[in-house]
Amino acid sequence: DIIGAIRSALTDGPLKGKQILVTSGPTHEPIDPVRYIANRSSGAQGTAIAVALRDLGADVIFVTGPADIPPPTGVHVIKVETAREMKNAVDTALPVDAAVFAAAVADWRMAQETHSKIKKKNGALPELKFAENPDILAGVAQLKKNRPKLVVGFAAETDNVIENATLKLGRKGCDWIVANDVSPDTGIMGGSENAVTLISNGNADVWPRMGKSEVAQKLAARIAQELTAS
Amino acid sequence: DIIGAIRSALTDGPLKGKQILVTSGPTHEPIDPVRYIANRSSGAQGTAIAVALRDLGADVIFVTGPADIPPPTGVHVIKVETAREMKNAVDTALPVDAAVFAAAVADWRMAQETHSKIKKKNGALPELKFAENPDILAGVAQLKKNRPKLVVGFAAETDNVIENATLKLGRKGCDWIVANDVSPDTGIMGGSENAVTLISNGNADVWPRMGKSEVAQKLAARIAQELTAS
Repeated sequence: DIIGAIRSALTDGPLKGKQILVTSGPTHEPIDPVRYIANRSSGAQGTAIAVALRDLGADVIFVTGPADIPPPTGVHVIKVETAREMKNAVDTALPVDAAVFAAAVADWRMAQETHSKIKKKNGALPELKFAENPDILAGVAQLKKNRPKLVVGFAAETDNVIENATLKLGRKGCDWIVANDVSPDTGIMGGSENAVTLISNGNADVWPRMGKSEVAQKLAARIAQELTAS
Repeated sequence: DIIGAIRSALTDGPLKGKQILVTSGPTHEPIDPVRYIANRSSGAQGTAIAVALRDLGADVIFVTGPADIPPPTGVHVIKVETAREMKNAVDTALPVDAAVFAAAVADWRMAQETHSKIKKKNGALPELKFAENPDILAGVAQLKKNRPKLVVGFAAETDNVIENATLKLGRKGCDWIVANDVSPDTGIMGGSENAVTLISNGNADVWPRMGKSEVAQKLAARIAQELTAS
């Protein structure tokens, strides 16, 4: 990996001089000091994308939640825990040429943070009230000023994958959505392979199942093509 | 660590021939295929206790949730994810001479498991309904048949640590409670040190802050004393 970082620093890849933001991993939303809500995300796909972009010469800003695997070398790493921290890190990183939102961000957080451990009261279970987290992808995709030239979202779906991902593309206002089926029986969540469909305006490009590194390299090549097209 | 396993297999420690169950790590309770509720627990203290008991010659059955650190060698490892899986593993491991419940078990799970990703409906946030998880510690401590000679619980508290832990000892029916203060400002959660109070019937023994390995060795020595006293 160090070799890759040195190679990209020395060679003139197609993404030389381009700043690309990549978010990765899950977010953790505290319930109280000892409990939290999390998304299942090992960070493997986001990390592989950061590596692939780095190897094409990009300056990568890597904003990562608490992932299972260490962040790559040769990129600028910003570690966060919650969705709100991730949004702050993303806002601070702008402007960039492209942004790839591979993190599995929690949609909700607790409406009120609790600094003491929640106890049962008279044997009754607690009621958890949720608030909506900021929509980081939509926020960047719909910027009037400083919008990256290319904004790529991810959609982890279990049902009607292409339909749900296409709706998400329109709703968020991003340019591409990388859609994948994370149903438990696919083994993709936490595994080393991925089967994705790249959705752009009116187009659904179904990629065969392949390693997460290969998905990352294919996506990085497409990003390089897009950013260097005149 | 392999050296330790070999040493314990070759030497006659004070716990030679004793079967001791140790639970460790957090549990993860699924909300839907992509989200879960978790406890903050690195598994560091439970793993250190398993190692210390092994090094005194015990046969250790190590039931662990998804921890940040790998389980030790030289113990019988059973990996689980949810509280209900942990309870099944514990029940299956009985009878044992002693049981140390160091895992941070979720008190609640979702009332209904959802096999599709939960979506917002008309912009409204979901309501999560909880059910109570089985109380693994109380279940074993209150067994009429096959109760281990020594049942040790843990209490992770943020307020009134000794008072809450003493109440827990009575409520659960266990012999000892290892109480610690996990308030965020102590740095104990996820750190390498611990400051515990060992609570037994009518007694609160405050230990100075020390490494988690030292806490484990001190606790293992006390367990050996208890199990070998005639």
